Amino acid sequence: MLLSLGLRRTAQLRGHHTAIIEPGRRLSWAEVEDRVSRFASALRVLGVRTGDRVAVMADNAGWHIEAYFAIPWAGAAIAPVNTRWALPEIVDGLNDCEPRVMIVDDAHLDLLPGVLAGAPSIEIVISTGATPDGAHDLETLIAQARPMPPEPVPHDQLAGIFYTGGTTGRSKGVMLSQRNLYMHSLMMITEDMFYPDSVGLHVAPMFHLADVGTVMGVTMSGGSHVCLPRFEPEATLKAIQDHGVTEVYLVSTMLRAVLDHPNFDQYDLRSLRSMIYGASPIAEALLVRALEKIPTAGFMQRYGMTETTGFFCLLKPQYQFVGGAKLRSAGQPIHGMDVRIVDENGDEVPRGAVGEVAVSGPTLMLGYWRRPEETAQAIRGGRMFTGDLAHMDEDGFVFVADRLKDMIISGGENIYSGEVENALYRHPAVAQCAVIGIPSEKWGEAVHAVIVPRFGEDISQAALDQHCRSLIAAYKCPKSYEFRTEPLPLTGAGKVRKYSLREPYWKAAE
Amino acid sequence: MLLSLGLRRTAQLRGHHTAIIEPGRRLSWAEVEDRVSRFASALRVLGVRTGDRVAVMADNAGWHIEAYFAIPWAGAAIAPVNTRWALPEIVDGLNDCEPRVMIVDDAHLDLLPGVLAGAPSIEIVISTGATPDGAHDLETLIAQARPMPPEPVPHDQLAGIFYTGGTTGRSKGVMLSQRNLYMHSLMMITEDMFYPDSVGLHVAPMFHLADVGTVMGVTMSGGSHVCLPRFEPEATLKAIQDHGVTEVYLVSTMLRAVLDHPNFDQYDLRSLRSMIYGASPIAEALLVRALEKIPTAGFMQRYGMTETTGFFCLLKPQYQFVGGAKLRSAGQPIHGMDVRIVDENGDEVPRGAVGEVAVSGPTLMLGYWRRPEETAQAIRGGRMFTGDLAHMDEDGFVFVADRLKDMIISGGENIYSGEVENALYRHPAVAQCAVIGIPSEKWGEAVHAVIVPRFGEDISQAALDQHCRSLIAAYKCPKSYEFRTEPLPLTGAGKVRKYSLREPYWKAAE
Repeated sequence: MLLSLGLRRTAQLRGHHTAIIEPGRRLSWAEVEDRVSRFASALRVLGVRTGDRVAVMADNAGWHIEAYFAIPWAGAAIAPVNTRWALPEIVDGLNDCEPRVMIVDDAHLDLLPGVLAGAPSIEIVISTGATPDGAHDLETLIAQARPMPPEPVPHDQLAGIFYTGGTTGRSKGVMLSQRNLYMHSLMMITEDMFYPDSVGLHVAPMFHLADVGTVMGVTMSGGSHVCLPRFEPEATLKAIQDHGVTEVYLVSTMLRAVLDHPNFDQYDLRSLRSMIYGASPIAEALLVRALEKIPTAGFMQRYGMTETTGFFCLLKPQYQFVGGAKLRSAGQPIHGMDVRIVDENGDEVPRGAVGEVAVSGPTLMLGYWRRPEETAQAIRGGRMFTGDLAHMDEDGFVFVADRLKDMIISGGENIYSGEVENALYRHPAVAQCAVIGIPSEKWGEAVHAVIVPRFGEDISQAALDQHCRSLIAAYKCPKSYEFRTEPLPLTGAGKVRKYSLREPYWKAAE
Repeated sequence: MLLSLGLRRTAQLRGHHTAIIEPGRRLSWAEVEDRVSRFASALRVLGVRTGDRVAVMADNAGWHIEAYFAIPWAGAAIAPVNTRWALPEIVDGLNDCEPRVMIVDDAHLDLLPGVLAGAPSIEIVISTGATPDGAHDLETLIAQARPMPPEPVPHDQLAGIFYTGGTTGRSKGVMLSQRNLYMHSLMMITEDMFYPDSVGLHVAPMFHLADVGTVMGVTMSGGSHVCLPRFEPEATLKAIQDHGVTEVYLVSTMLRAVLDHPNFDQYDLRSLRSMIYGASPIAEALLVRALEKIPTAGFMQRYGMTETTGFFCLLKPQYQFVGGAKLRSAGQPIHGMDVRIVDENGDEVPRGAVGEVAVSGPTLMLGYWRRPEETAQAIRGGRMFTGDLAHMDEDGFVFVADRLKDMIISGGENIYSGEVENALYRHPAVAQCAVIGIPSEKWGEAVHAVIVPRFGEDISQAALDQHCRSLIAAYKCPKSYEFRTEPLPLTGAGKVRKYSLREPYWKAAE
């Protein structure tokens, strides 16, 4: 019941304060609490039971924030759909977590027939705009339902399933409990990220844990949410100015787009207190421009993963200046987290030595949904083994050196090379392939494919691109290709030696 | 393992920073972590097992802070002895929680023979100064032990047993888990009570949960502890000046003694950021003087109980000014706590209406030690029924009207009138008695006894006082007596109508 406890406290102390600002609507915390309790009640009346999953496939919106509270209020778990995925990936995810209910907005109604045809677990559809045949209208449900008290579930009750790329084909569902999400929001407040006077802007997609942090943090601190359906650079600038936004989370790619916008100078951004970014250390050139152009904001870099309910290290504003000794670090462990650099045996290495980052604390996921073996592999002795290689300095700052897992972070999204390689291998002309991350001014890292065609086969970049897009999300598809006739270099264990494929690109970028 | 997680994080980030300042010694966080792991290891070597209780009977000291971490580090629970208790009370408490180990300082060695004679569970004595026959010297143990990793216990592992006055004769042991203590410290940090640059002064007794809050809060935030063995007004002033103390917890009685000290004006108190007080709303006259004399400090009032790991409401500095509308309140619920004003059925009453204060959240005690029935009476449906009557205003401020439980708060100590009445009734000349709290400039409330002697018996105030002091702590004994020949007024249920006994005193004080 921890999530409802937090929301109810906010409504109790700040009932008349503005909770949600979205185009055409403004709600107070008292109204949001009332709506959430009716929303939850409607779900129960429709047959949702404790432990059930409720999928949400939608852009950012006020009701989307409410869903993050209403679904756990009803004792159930939210399963946000990554709307950037291709239909086969969406269906795959839904068949993994088997939701009984799907809530969908107008922008995604076109996906609904394909989803319903592919995911038979969905018995009930709730829509927030146009109402297709057999679907329920969310606002009517909320208006007609009687408020209910929060379902008395334990703190460790499953609250959400968040999909993260898998090293093999299928994504893994990260199970987060009410305690995980609540504790993470409390930790953000201990780190001075949100205050009662916060105005948090949602532009990153709400299906992503990065934005869920803002959903939780602003709610628990009793501030106000400002929602934009999707990221758009000028709308972001305008929202910051019009609503006096104090905190915004942007991935580097979004930050660059905002700074580059031709009308940037026409907007007043002085309300911004925190510019929060994540996924990878900021390029120094980008930081210089950002500090110059938004001098009143403090910059905060988050480092973490879905399995730890988001970030477990934070680089605070006082370290974010050009030439700062800590700037290339991912920051220090936040309150509540135990972050250790360990060797192959799990023993802590001396300060300054490189090892794997192992994390424990109250935000560690419950596990991977229906994957006990992969859970046991990731969490050993109560610690999450992140797969990242790093060292820690004398002041506890973590410097990430490399990722053990074969993952590319591009435009703030985690992309597992194995997943992209699987898609490529399904093309009959591909004999061998390797997918790596190469430096990109725009994306941080860009997905790059090295292909060895089958002997005698002719294969075009365009054909491979079309092939990939039919199987996986556009953002996962290679941005560039390289064709070779020689077999790829292998490690002693017979795996492709990706290090030597990556090296020339990264050397050139230094 | 949450308490060790918090300490280890502090040592990781702030290893070289000063952790503890006490007369003649200054330790860094790296040293404290090392000492705590050895202290814990020594306890295990001596035979302490997970779940065992370790009693501590001592004044404030650096090692006493370390004990609050070392004992849970070893998987055991600390049982602090209230050193203001009379020997029979101390023995009673020890026989209730049955510790195997007792740690004692020089100031309390005189009590040791009586304690050992009365409490057979104690097999091992550790002393911190002079070493009596058969006792172990703490510093030798720490020096000789090898560091151990924290005992891997669950977050809900019992970490401490804190005794609180009982309405009947015997005190009840409040069981607090590692999670309770850790969460409370995290909540204090969310409420901006402690920072990495905090210098917290310990003058309130460390056996008391009020000071344990400072032990935990300063440690988790990575600040510095300054220890005075006991409260003494001028030493307090000098410590604040000499060490740049930023946070101090004082009960109103201590605050008055500090302000009244003839040398007050000779000390520089400008480092003080927070003057934290508790137990009862501050007398307006006292606040006026305090604000005048310590203008740089923010005043914070805490409201809570042992059963909730300390305070669950906080009145922040911005509300503490003369004539402030919220000044007579106990503040607002802090992060993580659900505080509701409820009727006899446990249903929430409308805002502004008086009801009982019911509290839930992650700091709710595990229960009363070996008292399942009293636990079930206090915690119903996951909520602690505090026994306090209050109303809540539109902004969530709680105004305490009265205490359902027959409790007197005098000099920051909870005194249950039933316990004092039990002592009085053991005097053969007492036919009927009632103990109430009456207004006191010095103590907030003072213990007052109304006595009806047995017919024909002659009984002196001095004789009753001596009788009480042989049975209960001096601070619980009546400060004044009143003798009547008529029977005391009774309620319909046959209980003494205390309200009508109290009324004339409180009316006169208005």
